[in-house]
Amino acid sequence: MFSQFPMDRGSRIVAEKLIIQRMKVVLGIDIGGTNTELGLVDKDGHILAESHTKTLINQPVENYLKELKKAMRSLLESRGDCELVGVGIGAPNGNYYKGTIDNAVNLGWGPKVPLIDLLKASFSVDTWALTNDANAAAVGEMIFGGAKGMKDFIMVTLGTGLGSGIVANGQLVLGYDSFAGELGHITAVPGGRDCGCGYKGCLETYCSATGLVRTATELLAVKRIASPLRDIPYNKLTSRDIYDAAIAGDEIATEAFNFTGEVLGRSIADMMTFSSPQAIILFGGVAKAGDLLINPLKASLKIHQRSMFSGRELEIKVSELDGAKAAILGAAATAWQLVK
Amino acid sequence: MFSQFPMDRGSRIVAEKLIIQRMKVVLGIDIGGTNTELGLVDKDGHILAESHTKTLINQPVENYLKELKKAMRSLLESRGDCELVGVGIGAPNGNYYKGTIDNAVNLGWGPKVPLIDLLKASFSVDTWALTNDANAAAVGEMIFGGAKGMKDFIMVTLGTGLGSGIVANGQLVLGYDSFAGELGHITAVPGGRDCGCGYKGCLETYCSATGLVRTATELLAVKRIASPLRDIPYNKLTSRDIYDAAIAGDEIATEAFNFTGEVLGRSIADMMTFSSPQAIILFGGVAKAGDLLINPLKASLKIHQRSMFSGRELEIKVSELDGAKAAILGAAATAWQLVK
Repeated sequence: MFSQFPMDRGSRIVAEKLIIQRMKVVLGIDIGGTNTELGLVDKDGHILAESHTKTLINQPVENYLKELKKAMRSLLESRGDCELVGVGIGAPNGNYYKGTIDNAVNLGWGPKVPLIDLLKASFSVDTWALTNDANAAAVGEMIFGGAKGMKDFIMVTLGTGLGSGIVANGQLVLGYDSFAGELGHITAVPGGRDCGCGYKGCLETYCSATGLVRTATELLAVKRIASPLRDIPYNKLTSRDIYDAAIAGDEIATEAFNFTGEVLGRSIADMMTFSSPQAIILFGGVAKAGDLLINPLKASLKIHQRSMFSGRELEIKVSELDGAKAAILGAAATAWQLVK
Repeated sequence: MFSQFPMDRGSRIVAEKLIIQRMKVVLGIDIGGTNTELGLVDKDGHILAESHTKTLINQPVENYLKELKKAMRSLLESRGDCELVGVGIGAPNGNYYKGTIDNAVNLGWGPKVPLIDLLKASFSVDTWALTNDANAAAVGEMIFGGAKGMKDFIMVTLGTGLGSGIVANGQLVLGYDSFAGELGHITAVPGGRDCGCGYKGCLETYCSATGLVRTATELLAVKRIASPLRDIPYNKLTSRDIYDAAIAGDEIATEAFNFTGEVLGRSIADMMTFSSPQAIILFGGVAKAGDLLINPLKASLKIHQRSMFSGRELEIKVSELDGAKAAILGAAATAWQLVK
């Protein structure tokens, strides 16, 4: 009798736990200019379910919110065996402090959308996080990717433009207004190329997919070497064309990558004087060029790295996260960071 | 009987407290190239006692340590009514993580001095902190000065060179190796003036006491305007001479300040893209020039500040701390930050 009683009690507790402890997940949402990607992400970075919906731009945000909520609900219902513990969102101009999307001209939803407040009412979950896509990518890299365990690194996304997320002391550097980490707009060449921001010579006018196209175009004008790139009009020329040409041995294309790496190495030496990171993690289309970009970058960094940092090698890594999934993982990671 | 007993017990407790609760102080130590300043600092930033000793450079560090310990002991004995709860030290190339002074060429003590370990054995106190002077100044400003309550700001010290301490999320940005915040060496003019660090065009070759002298000298060569500065040889020319001439209406001197402010404003716009601080706090000799520097700086910042930060004005403040005491307060503040 006495020996059976505690056993019975124990097995009852185990049974209760099995019922109560559903797998905890965060809903990661990446709001892009065309599509919104959604995913349920567990604490180890596995995406258990995915879906997407159109980002309805240049119309009242209410229309989009209706679709977004529908997509969120249907994704959650598809995995009723999971427990939602947080929602993390990456969006252009996402304000981490306020949970708002501020002045996102590309989305056309007006000066300020209180996104978190608008969603909160419809979902009973306590943890919400919103930040811009580049910051989300940095947190994703820290929690799930190649920066695991790092307390000081800079994530540089080489896409159409150049985005960045800075981590110092294990925390995102958000700044006073949540808009820190705009390294695409650090001065690379004083008075240089016109930038979309209205300034001249910003880093992203040189180091990005667009920057690479501009550099190749400039080289077509400067050099007299034959190149397949001479048959593609500017408006059709892509970083992929330049990559393919470089791989095939084209001098103009190779030189365009060399110049891009050189400028990026020089600016990374400037970034080092700021936060002396352990690593720079490169991400995005142009980063996939690998050694074509990384070799001239490292050579340039070696020349421009200041003497007070001599004796240590800054790690230059390409992100280990799957590009297509990284945005969802990053968005989810910003919420996982906050889940108690 | 019953009413007296609790009273007696109460007054006995009060008396014991009077004996036990001595005023808590931190010993702040600023190690300069010539002198070491020491001060006992309470938690409100009052310096209760001060002393100094020579910094014995270019000889075995043991000689200096003997003198330093003597100075520390005698200062502590002078205020036996205080309880020492921490020691904070500001020193060139102070490594916060390791408590060592690394490669401080000016001090001539070899590649690595384990300063905290060498002092710890002689003083029974738990909290020790060591960082470089510019970082200490930033923490001093945050705990005791004009940055009280700010979580994101950059302290820029315009002395012989340009030192900086960056605070983000309420914490010093130290970086992977504790050597973050070297903004004196961010690129101001690519390929520009030779810098002591071996690079060219670093910010401190333009914006510092030395930079101001170099600018004035360049202007003497470029312009044909009469100036009292033409009678002073380069090796004797000081930022003070240039300040006095500017105040007296000298065009060359005024123009030198304008150019310094212009370059600093441009670089501060770059710093903003990094950590988007609430304020820049200026400190040091050249900052005392006030409007002569601040007006062209603000005008330049207005031109160069990127559009994503438009709509907000970055605060440009001159430190409120007394220059002579700031180094001691800063050193003490780094330890006060850690006292439980």
